[in-house]
Amino acid sequence: MSIPSGMIHPDEARQIVLDSISQLPSESVPLTNAAGRVLARDVVARYDYPAFPASTMDGYAIASDDVSPWREITGVQIAGPDLGLTVYPGQTVKIMTGAPLPHGADAIIPIEMVEQADDHIVMPDEAVQPGAFLRQPGSDIRSGQTLITAGALITGVELGLIATMGYDTVSVSRKPRVAVISTGDELVDPGSDLAPGMIPDSNRYSLGAALRTMGAEIVHSSRVGDDVRELAERVTSVRDDIDILVTSGGVSVGDKDVVRMLLGESAEVKFRRVFMKPGKPLTFALDKGLVIFGLPGNPVSSMVSLELFVRPAINKMLGRHPLVPDRVSVTLATDIKPSDRLEFQRVQVTVDESGRLLASSTGNQISSRLASMLNANALIVIDAGTETIPAGTVVPAILLDLPRSAGTK
Amino acid sequence: MSIPSGMIHPDEARQIVLDSISQLPSESVPLTNAAGRVLARDVVARYDYPAFPASTMDGYAIASDDVSPWREITGVQIAGPDLGLTVYPGQTVKIMTGAPLPHGADAIIPIEMVEQADDHIVMPDEAVQPGAFLRQPGSDIRSGQTLITAGALITGVELGLIATMGYDTVSVSRKPRVAVISTGDELVDPGSDLAPGMIPDSNRYSLGAALRTMGAEIVHSSRVGDDVRELAERVTSVRDDIDILVTSGGVSVGDKDVVRMLLGESAEVKFRRVFMKPGKPLTFALDKGLVIFGLPGNPVSSMVSLELFVRPAINKMLGRHPLVPDRVSVTLATDIKPSDRLEFQRVQVTVDESGRLLASSTGNQISSRLASMLNANALIVIDAGTETIPAGTVVPAILLDLPRSAGTK
Repeated sequence: MSIPSGMIHPDEARQIVLDSISQLPSESVPLTNAAGRVLARDVVARYDYPAFPASTMDGYAIASDDVSPWREITGVQIAGPDLGLTVYPGQTVKIMTGAPLPHGADAIIPIEMVEQADDHIVMPDEAVQPGAFLRQPGSDIRSGQTLITAGALITGVELGLIATMGYDTVSVSRKPRVAVISTGDELVDPGSDLAPGMIPDSNRYSLGAALRTMGAEIVHSSRVGDDVRELAERVTSVRDDIDILVTSGGVSVGDKDVVRMLLGESAEVKFRRVFMKPGKPLTFALDKGLVIFGLPGNPVSSMVSLELFVRPAINKMLGRHPLVPDRVSVTLATDIKPSDRLEFQRVQVTVDESGRLLASSTGNQISSRLASMLNANALIVIDAGTETIPAGTVVPAILLDLPRSAGTK
Repeated sequence: MSIPSGMIHPDEARQIVLDSISQLPSESVPLTNAAGRVLARDVVARYDYPAFPASTMDGYAIASDDVSPWREITGVQIAGPDLGLTVYPGQTVKIMTGAPLPHGADAIIPIEMVEQADDHIVMPDEAVQPGAFLRQPGSDIRSGQTLITAGALITGVELGLIATMGYDTVSVSRKPRVAVISTGDELVDPGSDLAPGMIPDSNRYSLGAALRTMGAEIVHSSRVGDDVRELAERVTSVRDDIDILVTSGGVSVGDKDVVRMLLGESAEVKFRRVFMKPGKPLTFALDKGLVIFGLPGNPVSSMVSLELFVRPAINKMLGRHPLVPDRVSVTLATDIKPSDRLEFQRVQVTVDESGRLLASSTGNQISSRLASMLNANALIVIDAGTETIPAGTVVPAILLDLPRSAGTK
C-alpha cells in the first residue's frame, strides 16, 4: 500500500528523529546515585579480580606436594587482611571462604574432607591437586578488560561490578530535561468539577510518568487552553531549561506558522503526519537545539507515539543502547484485522508451555480507549491491508513489559 | 534427589517468607507522585466515560433523518465547553474531534466526505447512519466498573486512567523501609586503597539498587566488620525505622545465638540453609514485625537470593500482584550440566524468528562471578541431577528483563 502524500512511514520518521539529535554531555555521580542512569564511558578493569589467590571454601590451606599424613594447624586466615602466615611442611593454616592463600600453600582441602583434631588434621588418602578450591588472580576479571560498554543502563549488577573495580563515582549521561504541556479547551485538572463537554487532563500525568521511566527529568508540566499565544508564552518561559518539549493535543502545533509562533523564525518542522495508527498527526520540529514533539491528544495515540518516537530520541540523548527497542517475533493467538495504515495494536503477550510467545488482542483498539493499553505488554506491528491475518501468523512486536506464562490469569 | 537434613527446598523457603509477612498500611499520594507505587485500593469508575456523546472526527454534526440536500452552517463546536448549540432541519454545526454533540444532531460527517461552501455544506448521496463517528457515553468506561485492581503497579497508563476518572490522589501501599548492611573484615569502601586480602564492598550498592527497583525505600546502608557486637549496635540504631533488615556475608547471621544477639530473645530463625545454588546459606528470621534476611556474601548468591526471596517479601508488604514472578517456558540453546542442588543458572533469553524463547548460558556460573549476571535477563531453574540436559529441552525460567531478538548482538 502506498503512503499518501504529506505522510511518511514511521520507520522514516524515527530515522529523522534519530538523525536530528545529539548525545548530551556526561556528568560524574557517586555510586549511590548511579542506578537507573546510562553509562557514558566504558568501565575498564583497573586490576585483576580477584587480586590474590582466594579460597572458595572453608577449609585448610596446604602444600599439595607435602606428603605428611597429618598437619599441625599453625594459624587461621579469615577473609580480611592478609596476616602473612606461611605453611611449612607438616603444617596447615585454617582458612575461610574468600580469604587470601597463605604463603607456601597451593591448595585448599574443604573442612568436610578432613578429620580434625584439636591442633592438627588427618589428611585424606587421595592426593590433593594444586589449585584445588582456589580462585586464581584474574580468574573472574582481567586487568584492562572492558567490563561494561558505554550506553548500558546501570542496574544493581553493573553497579556491583563498578564498585568491585574500586570506582566510587560513575560517568553517566546527563538526563534529558523535558517539559510536558497538554493543550485543549476541553481539559480540566483531575478532581475539578466537569462541566458538559469537559474531560480531566490525563495525558500530562501518563506522559510524564512514562518519560521518567525512559530516563528523562520532567522539569515542567502544565496545561494550557487552545490558545497559541498562551502556549507560546509558556514555551518561552521554559525553553532555556529544557532539551525536549512534548505537547499533547489541542492546538495544531503541526502548523508551520504555529511552530514559528512558538519557537521563532529559525524553527524547522521536520514532519507533521505519520502513516500509522494510532497517532497519524505527529509533529516533530527543531529549533536551535530544542526538540519539539507535538503528540496527538488521544491518550492511546500519545502513549504509542511517545514509545515509538520520543523513546529513541531520549535514548539518543543518553547514548543508550539499543537506541531503538528490538522487534521480536510473536504468534497471533487470534485473527487480526489490519487497517488502512500501518498499525501498532495493543496486545497481551504470554508464553505457552512450549516456550512460544503468543499475542492476544486487548480489545477495542479505538485510539481514545486508554483501557486498551491497561493489560497490554506489547505492540504488534501490522502492515496496512484489507485481508484478515489469521491466528497462528508470526508478526513483529515491540515488548513493553515482561511476558507472563499463558497458564496464569 | 532428596534434600539433606538442615536444608529446605527454595519453594518451601519462599512460602515460609510469604506466610510470615503482612501487607503494610496504605497512604494517599498526589497523582504526580504515584508512578512506580502499588495501588492499595481498586480504582472504580465514578462516571460513564465519555460522559457525553463526542465526535471522533473533525466534521459536521447532522440529524441523520434530515433529507435536506445541503445544510447551513450555524455554528462551530470545538472540543471544550458545550456551547449549547442546536442543529435544526436544514442546518449543521461544524464540530471538532472530541467535541460534544450539539442538540438535535445524531451523527457526524467527516470533513473529507462533504463539499464545503462558505456558509453551507453539500450532503453526499449516501445516507448517514445514526451514531456515525460518535463515541457514545460509557462506550469506553461504564460507571461502577472496576478499572484497575488493587495490587497493580502504577505506570503511565494506570495513572492516565486514574486521572481520567477525576481522581487527584491515589491510595498506595507504604514503601517497605529497608536497611542494607554488608559485613566482612575483607571489605573496604570502593575508591579506598586495597591492602592484600581486601576487596571493595560491592553488595551494598548492588543490593540497594535492586531493592529500590523492587519498590523498597533504602533508609540505611552501611558496612561493618566481622564483629557481631558492632553489627548488633548498628541494628539497634536502625531497627525502629525499618521493616526489613538485609545483611550480606561475613558474620554468620544464620547462627541462632547471633540472631538473638542482634534482635533479642524474641527473635525466631525460620530457616538457615536452602537446597539451592547459588546461595545455600540464607537466613530468614523474624522479630516483632521486623523481617531479617541474612544473604550470602558472594555477589551472585546475594543477588539471586534477593530476587527469589526478598522480592516476594516486598511484594507481600506492598500487596503487589503477582506476589511471585511467573516462571515461563524457555528452550535451551546449549547443553546444561545440572549440579547437586536445585540451580538457578544465569542465562540470556532471546526470541528466535518463529517466536520461541531460547536460553543461552552467560558462561562460568561460579557464584563469585558477578559478570555472569551482566548480560543475563533470566534465571533458568534446573533440578538437581547428574545427567546433562541436552539443548532443545524446555525448562522453566524467571525473566528479569525483556528478551531481545535472537538476530541482534
